Amino acid sequence: MPKKVRIALDAMGGDRGAAVVVPGAGLALSRHPDSEFIFFGDAAVVEPLLREHLALVAVSRVVHTDVAVKMDEKPSQALRHGRWKSSMWLALDAVKKGEADAAVSAGNTGALMAMAKFNLKTMPGIDRPAIAALWPTLRGESIVLDLGASIGADAHHLVNLAVMGGAMAQVLFDLERPKIGLLNIGVEEVKGLDEVREAGRMLRETRPDAFDYYGFVEGDDIGKGTVDVVVTEGFAGNIALKTAEGTAKQFAEHLRSAMSRTVMAKIGYFFARQAFRALKEKMDPRRANGGVFLGLNGVVIKSHGGTDPEGFAAAIDLGYDMAKYELLAKINGMLGTQRQGAPLTAGAAS
Amino acid sequence: MPKKVRIALDAMGGDRGAAVVVPGAGLALSRHPDSEFIFFGDAAVVEPLLREHLALVAVSRVVHTDVAVKMDEKPSQALRHGRWKSSMWLALDAVKKGEADAAVSAGNTGALMAMAKFNLKTMPGIDRPAIAALWPTLRGESIVLDLGASIGADAHHLVNLAVMGGAMAQVLFDLERPKIGLLNIGVEEVKGLDEVREAGRMLRETRPDAFDYYGFVEGDDIGKGTVDVVVTEGFAGNIALKTAEGTAKQFAEHLRSAMSRTVMAKIGYFFARQAFRALKEKMDPRRANGGVFLGLNGVVIKSHGGTDPEGFAAAIDLGYDMAKYELLAKINGMLGTQRQGAPLTAGAAS
Repeated sequence: MPKKVRIALDAMGGDRGAAVVVPGAGLALSRHPDSEFIFFGDAAVVEPLLREHLALVAVSRVVHTDVAVKMDEKPSQALRHGRWKSSMWLALDAVKKGEADAAVSAGNTGALMAMAKFNLKTMPGIDRPAIAALWPTLRGESIVLDLGASIGADAHHLVNLAVMGGAMAQVLFDLERPKIGLLNIGVEEVKGLDEVREAGRMLRETRPDAFDYYGFVEGDDIGKGTVDVVVTEGFAGNIALKTAEGTAKQFAEHLRSAMSRTVMAKIGYFFARQAFRALKEKMDPRRANGGVFLGLNGVVIKSHGGTDPEGFAAAIDLGYDMAKYELLAKINGMLGTQRQGAPLTAGAAS
Repeated sequence: MPKKVRIALDAMGGDRGAAVVVPGAGLALSRHPDSEFIFFGDAAVVEPLLREHLALVAVSRVVHTDVAVKMDEKPSQALRHGRWKSSMWLALDAVKKGEADAAVSAGNTGALMAMAKFNLKTMPGIDRPAIAALWPTLRGESIVLDLGASIGADAHHLVNLAVMGGAMAQVLFDLERPKIGLLNIGVEEVKGLDEVREAGRMLRETRPDAFDYYGFVEGDDIGKGTVDVVVTEGFAGNIALKTAEGTAKQFAEHLRSAMSRTVMAKIGYFFARQAFRALKEKMDPRRANGGVFLGLNGVVIKSHGGTDPEGFAAAIDLGYDMAKYELLAKINGMLGTQRQGAPLTAGAAS
């Protein structure tokens, strides 16, 4: 019998906690019947919800705690109050102890990152973790990282980001040699940050077997899907992500108001409503919900705090794929060969 | 008789040169009849085009040169080949000599910036120029800078960007106290770049009279129009701009394909075509064409190289407003009071 994929869930994270986490797990289970769940949270809240999703009961375990990390708590506060006992900490700890293959939380990003670093530690060769996410593009989806785990990056960190993003693309997109680009700016008189140029040189010279280094890409290449993995430091990455979200909302808002302004437009909307539904689905941010914390000794997924069960299920799916297809072993393998000075090789176990 | 606004035009800049520049000037003239133009370029090309726009002939002068800066030339090359004699240089030189109030070029950005710095020099108190542009938002338009003139910024430069952007907002939006925000990232565990925090502290403490310092904004605040002026260093600014362009194109592409996939959608499109036209106009990048080079002793506007006459006219309009409403005097005044350690005051002449 093939091994089950065990997911630890922070049942008290996010704006609505267990009311989203439990039905989200139900949806994820229906897609991946070989999943098992451990819910960390208030048993008095979680258990009644579980009973509404009978299929879940058989594959789930509840570990009670009534300590939750607040959404607005500072990471240092969260560590002080929530270490050893909060639902967030316990979910991460299950990964640490090998009781779970991945942890998923919709809680406070900063607290989750701080606890994950503290408890799981970074992989050998990685100084700082990164946040990676799926970005819908015209050609499908790309991976973008770092989305704000740390600010600034030297060439070495950018190369590490490329390695981790490349491994994630192998796992998620089932590509042998994902195409990787370094985010840069194309204005002629400033040829980009020194670190970015140096990282480009390093990636070109190591000629990795595990991915294709494409070269520099600009901001508009992300949406075009020019490469499978876009690498940048956390400040620019976070700005890019939020700016794209803002622009998409702006477009949607203009579209909505244009379609309701005149009778003719309303009639048009009525006829084309299927097409609008398809469009909405295509631009649905829930489809790409879930940031992957990379560079840690464990798979940790951060869901949007305000998501619904469908969105939380997408975050669980992401954790499932990462665990099932052995993201960590892939990254370790690639980092290992890199450390030995050999060209980066796909799938070489460390 | 009120003073005319004199615009120097690089008639050989951009992908299509005079074929766009001359009709663009014609459109701009119809909106601002108190404009005058000097066209720098090949007289054999410009003059026949001018004769097709009779209204222009009366207010225009052609200065012949057959030297053009190429779109792919490096700034250093452009300076070597094009100094003293290229259409781009001569347009800037007209501003330097006081023969024109603003220069507009659709040519190579890097070359234009290099030549502008070399010839016009930066204002007292400004080390590095910036590129600012209008960004369409849900509430109208905002100004975003720097969009890539230079990489990285210390707190002092960020404050200068705020001053220059604030002056531009006063001129363009006719606001007494434009609202200014510093672009930052909101992830909890990293509270943003030290420089950005330091600039925030400086802006808060000087309590400028000339603008309201709003605080930090995130990438999605740009499209929301949370503030009138968004200040950031050139790398992140350029990434944000290009990413937004990419996202808008992506949305438009998805919309177009959704509306042509089924017969029902096509019928809907037919009924709602006016609404779609309005939407298209709203998201039309030509409306916001034109980057303003700030911090120089002269008004210089960079138009998109691939624009059409309507877009080029928008760039001329921008130059017209900057010159007519005395942007440079406003910036100088604000920088002057800042240098004297006094609170930044609106309109205080230096």
